Amino acid sequence: MSIAATANVSSSQVLSAAAMLDHWQGHRRLTRRVIEAFPEDQLLNFSLGTMRPFGAMAMELLTIGVPMVRGIVTTEWHRLEQPAPSSKGEVLRLWDEDTAALDHLWRQIPPERFQETMSAFNQYPGKVYDLLMYAIDNEIHHRGQGYVYLRALGIEPPAFYERE
Amino acid sequence: MSIAATANVSSSQVLSAAAMLDHWQGHRRLTRRVIEAFPEDQLLNFSLGTMRPFGAMAMELLTIGVPMVRGIVTTEWHRLEQPAPSSKGEVLRLWDEDTAALDHLWRQIPPERFQETMSAFNQYPGKVYDLLMYAIDNEIHHRGQGYVYLRALGIEPPAFYERE
Repeated sequence: MSIAATANVSSSQVLSAAAMLDHWQGHRRLTRRVIEAFPEDQLLNFSLGTMRPFGAMAMELLTIGVPMVRGIVTTEWHRLEQPAPSSKGEVLRLWDEDTAALDHLWRQIPPERFQETMSAFNQYPGKVYDLLMYAIDNEIHHRGQGYVYLRALGIEPPAFYERE
Repeated sequence: MSIAATANVSSSQVLSAAAMLDHWQGHRRLTRRVIEAFPEDQLLNFSLGTMRPFGAMAMELLTIGVPMVRGIVTTEWHRLEQPAPSSKGEVLRLWDEDTAALDHLWRQIPPERFQETMSAFNQYPGKVYDLLMYAIDNEIHHRGQGYVYLRALGIEPPAFYERE
């Protein structure tokens, strides 16, 4: 039995930075397919129970994800405005810009920073790994809501397990 | 600058096993509050767009989460049956049993196992850390759908960011 195997499970490491980025980009590919699955009019206007249309939720995700990582890299926080999207094409274009930006910024996170405490957007204090998981979880949460919208519209959503 | 700080970000470790368990149990506390927020009749019967009631989704989560961790610990896979729940009290009781079981089982995961490949339920191959994240993500996904049900019922859901 190796030394690692005799270590307490609590301190053992589960996830590398590269694996976390892969995981997130896989989720982002799925979210992009959910955006695509909406007819434009429904993306911008359809909602249930006083909630926002999925296009507005997607814009929220864009104001949290990459701006979060940029703040973690630079230690400067600029929260983006969150305008209502004007078209499905605009949402997808912004989404694709952020796919490339996320890959680029991720490589610049100092390795020790993941365990540091920062105050995201000067408002939300937490361990950096927790802040990043919050951004990913928030995407999964709202995308799940998008699935209900699609089902309510009679549209088959993309498979949850497919992340390529 | 430490050796760790000069390492490539890709191989740096983001998440310990203890942090992953904390993260999951925080999500499970929130999911429990979502179950509680439903009136019993709506938990068992209300749905939108040909989807399942939230009580049935909660039962699915119970057949994936702890059974996944038990299989990772024992390398034996037993998928639980997924009966429709008979009452809100039953769902909450099963949920609470699994809260304790998850803490107990987690400590038994051999530290090196997180990076190994297993075939969950003899059907879904993947790295163990990815299988665990899949279980957590699936919970977030369905819980987000429960939020829409609650909103459609005119019920304010619990705050997404509250995990205590």
